[in-house]
Amino acid sequence: MTDAIEIPERSGTAFTLKQGDTLVVIDPRGEQVADLLAFNAEDLNEVISSGRTLDYAETIYLTTDHILYSNRSRPMLTIVDDTVGRHDFLLTPCSFDTFHHFYPDLPPHRGCFGNLATALEPFGVQPDRIPTAFNCFMNVPIDGETGRLKVLPPISKAGDHVTFRAEMDLIIGLTACSAPDSNGGTFKPIHYRIEAACSPVTTRVATQTDTRKSR
Amino acid sequence: MTDAIEIPERSGTAFTLKQGDTLVVIDPRGEQVADLLAFNAEDLNEVISSGRTLDYAETIYLTTDHILYSNRSRPMLTIVDDTVGRHDFLLTPCSFDTFHHFYPDLPPHRGCFGNLATALEPFGVQPDRIPTAFNCFMNVPIDGETGRLKVLPPISKAGDHVTFRAEMDLIIGLTACSAPDSNGGTFKPIHYRIEAACSPVTTRVATQTDTRKSR
Repeated sequence: MTDAIEIPERSGTAFTLKQGDTLVVIDPRGEQVADLLAFNAEDLNEVISSGRTLDYAETIYLTTDHILYSNRSRPMLTIVDDTVGRHDFLLTPCSFDTFHHFYPDLPPHRGCFGNLATALEPFGVQPDRIPTAFNCFMNVPIDGETGRLKVLPPISKAGDHVTFRAEMDLIIGLTACSAPDSNGGTFKPIHYRIEAACSPVTTRVATQTDTRKSR
Repeated sequence: MTDAIEIPERSGTAFTLKQGDTLVVIDPRGEQVADLLAFNAEDLNEVISSGRTLDYAETIYLTTDHILYSNRSRPMLTIVDDTVGRHDFLLTPCSFDTFHHFYPDLPPHRGCFGNLATALEPFGVQPDRIPTAFNCFMNVPIDGETGRLKVLPPISKAGDHVTFRAEMDLIIGLTACSAPDSNGGTFKPIHYRIEAACSPVTTRVATQTDTRKSR
């Protein structure tokens, strides 16, 4: 287990995550969103897919035991623990353009999109390859009758977290979100921790076998 | 104006659409879905984006006057007419893998994903670049409390249609959907018609100017 690493407010980072490792994303102060992206470390053309995931899950609210699928219908991450139960997988990361649209009177900001593009560039990910992110702690309820969506403050409290197990070797992008509405009007850091599989070789084989059995 | 072209049941096609042209997608018999994709004809890295579009529209139910945006936050298509008012922009095209998941007892089918990949291949689009499609006539209501989604028969009747104006030169992929649940259990053709701008050069300039003014 590593110590928790801080992503400062309105910034982002990227790192590798090995199959079988777990990633704990922590909201240290509460009401703070973290946009998460995942790419197959062996082939960047395989990427996290909201459309595949929502289709298989048959719900827009993903939580413990749900699997985040790639564009090739393969499991990338499994949510193994979740103290919040409300995240968003509908909306793309905020960007210069979305700031211009929603906050024309605020100073422009490159947003999670710009932070992810910069953090993922050393791994070879092009900005156009950034899809809809899994937005940890983001609270986007939908009116079932009208279809209208709202971006409300997260329901996460200080110390809440969501934990993912990697189902393949991954490159992860992760932010402390920059958009006022998504974060209750204030900008806070995000913490994350990587917990390596105890015995890398045997545990990874076991995990892979279990995953196949369960499908 | 061209005559209506038929996409046979469980198949797909691809074609170019010039800025200012309109594309009319028709459900000739009712209760039949058509998956629609759009790529910038000048740069295939720019592609239709459900996440950007839903963010700007602030609703999951898109209809007349809504704009379908690209991953670069630029308008690709505007819905200019819609006799149905219920389409889906959450789920990816059905595929061998989704058939295996949802219909394990039926003969496998490559689905809209395979049909789109084949139709778009001559234009240089790789299968991994196929995102969440705009699924014309697909009826995917969401329970606002639980987040659960259902795939119900379309509410479209014979002759219903949805019309799009191209806001840039596009490559379009379009299918007659192959999945039983999406189409009320039967497979029907889709018709489409392209209506060219009356005076291509002047009309396209005017359209571009109008679009800029309205933003």
